[in-house]
Amino acid sequence: MTGVARMLGEIASIGADPRGGYARVGYGPADRELREWFTGHAEARGLDVHRDRNGIVWAWWRPPGASGTAIVTGSHLDSVPGGGAYDGPLGVASALAAVDVLRARGEAPDRPLAIAVFPEEEGSRFGLACLGSRLMAGAVDPDRALALVDREGDTLADALRRDGLEPGAVGPDRAALDDIACFVELHVEQGRGLVDLGQPVAIGAAILGHGRWRVTIDGQGNHAGTTLMSDRRDPMVAAARAVIEIRDLARAIPDARATVGRIEPVPGGTNVIASRVSFWVDARHPDDAVTAMLIASVRDAVATAAAAEGCVATVHEESLSPTVDFDRSLRERLRDALPDAPELGTGAGHDAGVLAERIPTAMLFVRNPTGVSHSPEELVDDADADLGAVALADALGALSRSV
Amino acid sequence: MTGVARMLGEIASIGADPRGGYARVGYGPADRELREWFTGHAEARGLDVHRDRNGIVWAWWRPPGASGTAIVTGSHLDSVPGGGAYDGPLGVASALAAVDVLRARGEAPDRPLAIAVFPEEEGSRFGLACLGSRLMAGAVDPDRALALVDREGDTLADALRRDGLEPGAVGPDRAALDDIACFVELHVEQGRGLVDLGQPVAIGAAILGHGRWRVTIDGQGNHAGTTLMSDRRDPMVAAARAVIEIRDLARAIPDARATVGRIEPVPGGTNVIASRVSFWVDARHPDDAVTAMLIASVRDAVATAAAAEGCVATVHEESLSPTVDFDRSLRERLRDALPDAPELGTGAGHDAGVLAERIPTAMLFVRNPTGVSHSPEELVDDADADLGAVALADALGALSRSV
Repeated sequence: MTGVARMLGEIASIGADPRGGYARVGYGPADRELREWFTGHAEARGLDVHRDRNGIVWAWWRPPGASGTAIVTGSHLDSVPGGGAYDGPLGVASALAAVDVLRARGEAPDRPLAIAVFPEEEGSRFGLACLGSRLMAGAVDPDRALALVDREGDTLADALRRDGLEPGAVGPDRAALDDIACFVELHVEQGRGLVDLGQPVAIGAAILGHGRWRVTIDGQGNHAGTTLMSDRRDPMVAAARAVIEIRDLARAIPDARATVGRIEPVPGGTNVIASRVSFWVDARHPDDAVTAMLIASVRDAVATAAAAEGCVATVHEESLSPTVDFDRSLRERLRDALPDAPELGTGAGHDAGVLAERIPTAMLFVRNPTGVSHSPEELVDDADADLGAVALADALGALSRSV
Repeated sequence: MTGVARMLGEIASIGADPRGGYARVGYGPADRELREWFTGHAEARGLDVHRDRNGIVWAWWRPPGASGTAIVTGSHLDSVPGGGAYDGPLGVASALAAVDVLRARGEAPDRPLAIAVFPEEEGSRFGLACLGSRLMAGAVDPDRALALVDREGDTLADALRRDGLEPGAVGPDRAALDDIACFVELHVEQGRGLVDLGQPVAIGAAILGHGRWRVTIDGQGNHAGTTLMSDRRDPMVAAARAVIEIRDLARAIPDARATVGRIEPVPGGTNVIASRVSFWVDARHPDDAVTAMLIASVRDAVATAAAAEGCVATVHEESLSPTVDFDRSLRERLRDALPDAPELGTGAGHDAGVLAERIPTAMLFVRNPTGVSHSPEELVDDADADLGAVALADALGALSRSV
């Protein structure tokens, strides 16, 4: 027993979504409570905790004699709306447990070891995933980020200020990056790869390129009862047509994924023909050229669907991340440390993917018996959680000696 | 100048929708402010104002010698989200102006005359249109109504209590109905009938039968990046297919209208395949048998669209109102009073339609140059507003002598 399941049990009631699962919004009250939970655990282990200017919480273990750049592990604590219990928190609890495992073995690392907790990884509040690591890595312009607006109309700057951070201070943190030898993030697998292989833990190979596009279709708002069907310019019908086209386009390309999970009609009344419908496209493919081609087709399909209803569409790219192959030499070292673990790619974005542009990063995935993620059905067996934490301890110990 | 435009100007800043137009939610702060505005005008005219147990505000003019049952006019002050300035308030302001016109003519009615302001006519908050008049007329079970829930999770009972009403007291009000000789509602036209005829004012002939159905499609929530297209049971795709089918079904039936203006995916995250999508169908036709047939086809289409995506659909009827032909003898008297006014039907529901089951009712429509309604583009020229108020005064004066 590494204590991972027990630690996750302590936060099981924080940030429950009334519709099922969790809604742990970045920079919100649940996020704060989870951060306090993490800080408590880190301080109980004698780790040196601080929150940096980008809102990333660091817990440092600097054993006597340790020197050089740091081995960093960690993950995030926020969730998508209706999310599961493991996406993010599993990596944080496993990092704490890995420290316990190393200490129980009397194995102090030769380098400083840090656990990092990144804010707004899901991008559920401000629409830009991995916001904390992007700010740190310089992968988003701070001014652009600060102007992002949530559904309540608050900007990121507002949210940071209310959460005790200084908006003017966010942005690239070269000093912090220079101090990191490598970052290894443990995460619940968000598919059935390990189930099919009959293995509990995998080494990450690559993250599919992915992006988000906001589609806005403008038509003519009007009364649902008095407007003849032939007189309408209904953006809801155009959006419906586009949703089907987008699915069909993705289905025709091997390994592509495209999803519309969010749609917002304006004004959204039952007896009102909408004047505008916005929806968001999440698209991914291992080959960035294919993703670009897919999105070009999406733009065409949306324009055609809108024109067929007398509407006008615009497509706005909110984010785009190329496919990331994790650091080759780091993966070799992980294979040496975990000889039984297979390598698996993932379709999900992660802070480890964003940071890969600046520092060597790697990931470990832990088996998910349902294969379902971003849903209350997401699952990790307690025994697998223990195996994951031990594998992470093995990896961190080996890296501290070999990087 | 009857003062209608000036009165509407006084409330132009109340309840503005940040996305354009008005969002004057029933029983909310804007609704309360509008009620105070109305009360101020009514009391300034020496009318006797009271709010009844169903939340309907009454302003009575009981001239000396007036006797018998009352002539009632009025409308509502709430709006759909993103609604226009005239749908509702035009009828209320015109009623006040009509009193002024009658008094300026020295024409005191032979019967008591009342202006009624009905709450939650649009049903934008609790999903049931004409809620105030339905409660009064016994057209909705009070317990069912009190349990209706708004988007914030508040019941009607909660909203009434906060708005100063006693939930236990709502329901059929036979005494009030017995005291009414007839009800005449003036309303902005919600189509282009009067524009095409080149006339400022019409007499209402009938209200199309209409209803609202909530469709819920359940699928499998999952991660947008890691779930293969072939492994999905995506209710958004099923809903999109259903939206198109519903439009096509309505388009194939002469005089039918079907609209999806509201759609809500759960959880509604960009990087999450929805587990559930709800949307609302507003359907209308002059022939109730055709409406029933249309909805039967909608049920089939929704089930087929859901099944094609491995999802399951349910269709719940939220309301259904049959086609209403306004009282024949009342219409004849209005034709005598307003010999130039054509007769027009309407696709929109109104309190006058609900009350028609219990008392003689009629409507007057005022020209809308854009033909657009439930939208900021809804319009009435000031000169037409004056003609409408004068026509209403003519009608009320004639009815008080002839009913």
